[in-house]
Amino acid sequence: MPYDFETVIDRRQTNSIKWDVKANELPMWIADMDFKTAPAITAALEAKAAFGIYGYEDVPTAYFEAVADWWASEHHFRPELASMMFCTGVVPAISSIVRKMSAVGDNVLVQAPVYNIFYHSIENNGRHTLSSDLIYQDGQYTIDFDDLATKLADPLTTMMIVCNPHNPIGIVWSRDTLQRIGELCLQNHVLLVADEIHADLALNGNDYTPVASLSPDVAANTVSCVSPSKTFNVAALHAATLIIPDATVRARVSRGINNDELAEPNAFAVPGSIAAYRDGHEWVAALREKLAANQRLLQQFIKTELPAVHVIEAQATYLIWLDISAVADDASELADFIRQQTGLFLSAGDVYRGDGHQFLRMNIACPTSMLQDGLNRLATGINAYQAK
Amino acid sequence: MPYDFETVIDRRQTNSIKWDVKANELPMWIADMDFKTAPAITAALEAKAAFGIYGYEDVPTAYFEAVADWWASEHHFRPELASMMFCTGVVPAISSIVRKMSAVGDNVLVQAPVYNIFYHSIENNGRHTLSSDLIYQDGQYTIDFDDLATKLADPLTTMMIVCNPHNPIGIVWSRDTLQRIGELCLQNHVLLVADEIHADLALNGNDYTPVASLSPDVAANTVSCVSPSKTFNVAALHAATLIIPDATVRARVSRGINNDELAEPNAFAVPGSIAAYRDGHEWVAALREKLAANQRLLQQFIKTELPAVHVIEAQATYLIWLDISAVADDASELADFIRQQTGLFLSAGDVYRGDGHQFLRMNIACPTSMLQDGLNRLATGINAYQAK
Ligand SMILES: Cc1ncc(COP(=O)(O)O)c(C=O)c1O
Ligand SMILES: Cc1ncc(COP(=O)(O)O)c(C=O)c1O
Repeated sequence: MPYDFETVIDRRQTNSIKWDVKANELPMWIADMDFKTAPAITAALEAKAAFGIYGYEDVPTAYFEAVADWWASEHHFRPELASMMFCTGVVPAISSIVRKMSAVGDNVLVQAPVYNIFYHSIENNGRHTLSSDLIYQDGQYTIDFDDLATKLADPLTTMMIVCNPHNPIGIVWSRDTLQRIGELCLQNHVLLVADEIHADLALNGNDYTPVASLSPDVAANTVSCVSPSKTFNVAALHAATLIIPDATVRARVSRGINNDELAEPNAFAVPGSIAAYRDGHEWVAALREKLAANQRLLQQFIKTELPAVHVIEAQATYLIWLDISAVADDASELADFIRQQTGLFLSAGDVYRGDGHQFLRMNIACPTSMLQDGLNRLATGINAYQAK
Repeated sequence: MPYDFETVIDRRQTNSIKWDVKANELPMWIADMDFKTAPAITAALEAKAAFGIYGYEDVPTAYFEAVADWWASEHHFRPELASMMFCTGVVPAISSIVRKMSAVGDNVLVQAPVYNIFYHSIENNGRHTLSSDLIYQDGQYTIDFDDLATKLADPLTTMMIVCNPHNPIGIVWSRDTLQRIGELCLQNHVLLVADEIHADLALNGNDYTPVASLSPDVAANTVSCVSPSKTFNVAALHAATLIIPDATVRARVSRGINNDELAEPNAFAVPGSIAAYRDGHEWVAALREKLAANQRLLQQFIKTELPAVHVIEAQATYLIWLDISAVADDASELADFIRQQTGLFLSAGDVYRGDGHQFLRMNIACPTSMLQDGLNRLATGINAYQAK
């Protein structure tokens, strides 16, 4: 079945956060795709809407079965039904886990540059962020394991959040890397929380490894957060699943999620997720092709039109990390300039911390014509900036 | 336009918490109605589902305008747009407000018997419940203002939750009573949180007074929680609104709601609420007639068939508080017995604390045939209990 990833859909005046921009502006910042979702999801939501009663709901076993089956067929690992828990979102889950499983004043370890909202979840709850910054060398990122080991050994470090695949740098961490991280966490009594929201968007045959599939001792010390949110562009479905192999950890996290009022599904979360996971395989396969094609288009364009910009290859996600250090010192200033001059709205890398101030993040999940428009604006903006 | 409150809808196998019961059982416990909601809501949800993109959303001004207009025309008070804030539910809001606006170890005052989830919101967050129990005399409830004043004057009491209209006793508090409570709170630096989720279900001309409409000094010390949830039976829409006249209180509560990840609407919350508040007036008027008629039917039935049971008149809500003290000492045991013998599933009053152990709570928001079935089962159960 062919899916339509080319029609431009007008999302202004739809309460969309992404599209709350001026008439001449083109938003390519927040992780929200400009495609209609899988038809099966829309059909399930329409059916639910038509039922006409929207009272209190439980999460049925069928929901967890759909998640487990999806993981089994897409990721070669079937989480146990009993290990799973529903939550209203990945960020809500992480915030709640920070509150429940660490204490005020503790360190939570992250690997900057990383998804900026982790910092909110940590710091707005009175914990400290401790970053083991990723090393950027020869245009590629790696982990400094000595630094990581030292920081995990700090007795005040009680939790680590790993982003796998990693937003914004697009790396899919290997099984060996994850196992090594997991062992360090275990040795140091640090709970490992894995944000795997981009799991389904590993591209070009890059293989994502579920943290829950690591060795049993390591897996017992982990909480994984997954969701159809990014995969199917259903952020406002408010559905996520936690995979927690260890019963004690699970009971504690569950109490936190319930206490924080994040455990109950809205009327659409369950049918939407089930439709996605049961009937969305083909659509996601087609989406991955489209995202890979868009990335090739971008790479080609930048190579020829903007050679001063270095593209970090995204092994996963539709968020492209652009090294602009040869163009400007301050990504934030450059992003403002581009927006002012061309209407193109990108994310400045600063918010991701680490070396983010040398990068822009560009969301390329959109029809080709829109991407081309965005790339043209990017070239216009950067050329104008350089001509200053 | 006539609405259908008589067709029995099969809600088994729909993930409904209410209907997760055995084949022979009839659930009349949780506050969830067995009616389809207002047609305008269903139409709005179907339209939203059909759109096909469900990305991140903001709450538009149109949402707050719809709430304000509804309050103006239904309740003769128009909250200022700037005083309002979206939240995913009333209970989530109360839990978050408890966390943000009181400290661990503080007392939060309630008036037992009262909605049991208040106790969870208070105690699961490490605060103490302090109840100024309502006085039950001659079959009616009143407030012991001396006791209330003493308990509010305790310096460890920092918050009061008033339930208006009151679940489970069905009272609609008068403006004078609320003003008096509000003044006591103000004098004692106690924040007054009003759960007004049943506001739209005041019956038989009983007039509900929004706490936000009290004198300005008192109103500045209040947070009101409203929602279409009970009114339109859309608990799983996950939409509620906080009305907070004072800017400082509002900013603090807002930070709490955001930090607790309860501030973002799912894709359906906004269009569903707007449809309810713009186009739901006639439906709610018809619903109120139906609920009043059901209550008359129940009163008549109990008077003739179960004279040992005393019905507390519900000025509001579809939750009927039945005094069973002449039948049993222990409502919980009686409720279990009735469920065992007849399949009728009621709420035992114990969970509401105070004198709740002498009461059963019965949800009568259902078609006449279902109510009649429930009443027959109630009579069978109570007669069998008495015959023991
Ligand atoms: C790594 C990561 N985690 C979480 C989220 C958001 O998750 P949710 O919308 O389920 O809270 C995003 C959104 O971009 C993300 O990139
Ligand atoms: C007094 C009261 N408050 C709150 C609620 C539930 O509110 P929500 O579902 O919006 O969390 C109920 C449900 O019965 C209720 O009776």
